[in-house]
Amino acid sequence: MSLSRRSFSATLAGAAAPALKAQQPSSRKIGYCIIGLGRISMNEFMPGVEKSEHCRITGLVSGHPEKAQKMAAKYGVPATSIYSYEDFDRKMASNPEIDAVYVALPNSMHAEYTVRSAGAGKHVLCEKPMATSVAEAQQMIAACKSAGKKLMIAYRCQLEPNTLKAQQAARSGQIGRVELIDSSFGFTIAPGEWRLNKKLAGGGPLMDVGIYCLQACRIMSGEDPVEVDARWNVLDHDGRFAEVEENLVWSMRFPSGLLTTCNTSYGTNTGGWFRVYGSKGMIEMQPAFSYDGLKLQINGKEQTVEDHNPMQFAREADHFAECIRQDKAPKTAGEEGQTDLRIMEAIYRSCREQGPVKLA
Amino acid sequence: MSLSRRSFSATLAGAAAPALKAQQPSSRKIGYCIIGLGRISMNEFMPGVEKSEHCRITGLVSGHPEKAQKMAAKYGVPATSIYSYEDFDRKMASNPEIDAVYVALPNSMHAEYTVRSAGAGKHVLCEKPMATSVAEAQQMIAACKSAGKKLMIAYRCQLEPNTLKAQQAARSGQIGRVELIDSSFGFTIAPGEWRLNKKLAGGGPLMDVGIYCLQACRIMSGEDPVEVDARWNVLDHDGRFAEVEENLVWSMRFPSGLLTTCNTSYGTNTGGWFRVYGSKGMIEMQPAFSYDGLKLQINGKEQTVEDHNPMQFAREADHFAECIRQDKAPKTAGEEGQTDLRIMEAIYRSCREQGPVKLA
Repeated sequence: MSLSRRSFSATLAGAAAPALKAQQPSSRKIGYCIIGLGRISMNEFMPGVEKSEHCRITGLVSGHPEKAQKMAAKYGVPATSIYSYEDFDRKMASNPEIDAVYVALPNSMHAEYTVRSAGAGKHVLCEKPMATSVAEAQQMIAACKSAGKKLMIAYRCQLEPNTLKAQQAARSGQIGRVELIDSSFGFTIAPGEWRLNKKLAGGGPLMDVGIYCLQACRIMSGEDPVEVDARWNVLDHDGRFAEVEENLVWSMRFPSGLLTTCNTSYGTNTGGWFRVYGSKGMIEMQPAFSYDGLKLQINGKEQTVEDHNPMQFAREADHFAECIRQDKAPKTAGEEGQTDLRIMEAIYRSCREQGPVKLA
Repeated sequence: MSLSRRSFSATLAGAAAPALKAQQPSSRKIGYCIIGLGRISMNEFMPGVEKSEHCRITGLVSGHPEKAQKMAAKYGVPATSIYSYEDFDRKMASNPEIDAVYVALPNSMHAEYTVRSAGAGKHVLCEKPMATSVAEAQQMIAACKSAGKKLMIAYRCQLEPNTLKAQQAARSGQIGRVELIDSSFGFTIAPGEWRLNKKLAGGGPLMDVGIYCLQACRIMSGEDPVEVDARWNVLDHDGRFAEVEENLVWSMRFPSGLLTTCNTSYGTNTGGWFRVYGSKGMIEMQPAFSYDGLKLQINGKEQTVEDHNPMQFAREADHFAECIRQDKAPKTAGEEGQTDLRIMEAIYRSCREQGPVKLA
């Protein structure tokens, strides 16, 4: 057997190809059914799919027929692929154009709609936070596993090139030993948002935006915390914070001994940033969590990154499409979301008990 | 009795004047004796006095005769006004050219040298941290009180115009309700520094630079914390941190409910900054605690401030001189330093006990 370098490479490529080709659907765009037509779907994810390489929108689930028809017209979704919440799963099951769903409902509904979608034979891309409890997360993971379907949590930052460059710098020793991390994300919430309803949201700013700070600490350190200590408050008694916290501050201790400090808020716009302080330098992203305009500095020098698709939601949709086509595990599978929920449950427990909570 | 507006004002001014004139010394510069010729004295305070309006250097206390002679020559201090640590107080007592001392020794020596200076009939400007314990702070305050001498802690930031503008913005409602404050100050310490000796320093970065973050939270909120929760670590086992913490993170709860997060370090240069997040805007100072080059932003807009003397140490020396001349209480009297020590003792206790500590 004698192979030139070129034919050897071709053989290798060919060896990888069958698995790819064996997966359905390999030769057409991955079809997403959008579950929930709120701001993030309409303003971010669907335009993202439109800018993606490998995806298209092939179904809609909404409680507002007019809105759904308008979106269907815009994205070329047939009227027969507009479903109601009541029977979307039964009807969607027989629609071969739908490969996956994008769950963008209030947090408390993520579990039900993930489980029903998996039951209908569809892969699930679910918005963060994955659910409102670890118990729900476990159900979601189990349901997707038993259905043989993939589950990805929509942590777009973990696919974002500035964040990845920061992570590489933090973990490669480029700033020496990581000594401290701090992070903040908060915004001034308008009255009436479902996010202020504890039953729908599961919690306040921690669940919604503080989770980005938690992710930043985990991603940059490469560790999961072993202890959290948190406090919350309500300062504004205008009625918005009858059910969830307004501000929450917390520290985390990691297995290496690393300590981090974070804060999150629905009462103030903190800008959304993180800093990783090393023994030999510093990494700063600010804004770190926005949909665009992210800025990364390493040792005071602004970085530029290769960005083949600057639209984070397009990249996210494409990553999951690639995972489906190539039968790969998503970078941020259900377990990643479950870990965050486990930590956030500990953070809330720490707030209630006003003391530290250890994580197993 | 009939007074024109002008003569009435003149009478008022005259009424204030006698008290001022009765104080000695009112017509000449305030003479400082420098106790401890380390970096902060030689590189910052003494050049500051030279640039001050109302001060001069009239005495030196040092264990290094050569260094003292060099400094004496530079600042025009007579050889007879160079003292040793052993008997400076006895000799200084009869030197009418010395009105006040500047104590710039390792923290653990602040109490002794403040008490001895007050006993010698001199006012005391003492570097921060005021001491290594509340008990020492109480002794210092009592000694100065019983000697009828003033005691000021060298919190230069409280006289610094950017900081004062930030404070005004925070407290006047310019950024709405203060929702969160965070602050960080750390630097990479060299081996061999007295700051790494627990007996001399009383603690690690918290005592040295974290105290600035504590001050920022107190100054900006106008409140003193009622609960602290802190954690510390040592990550670098190169021998520097055999006695004191390397990193320390802490949160504080204030009477209004306000929560703040801070971190401090001897293992990384965090830049020294604070942010005050309000319901309607944000205040940021970065650098916030440096000797110069401070930058203040309010709602994203860089501020410029009137600064009659950009040298912070000159302003500090002049403020204390003014207090001595006019028999006024210093802005940062001993009680201010004692409050910080009470909080820092609680922070260290929280670290040791790994749980929250309430402040009475």
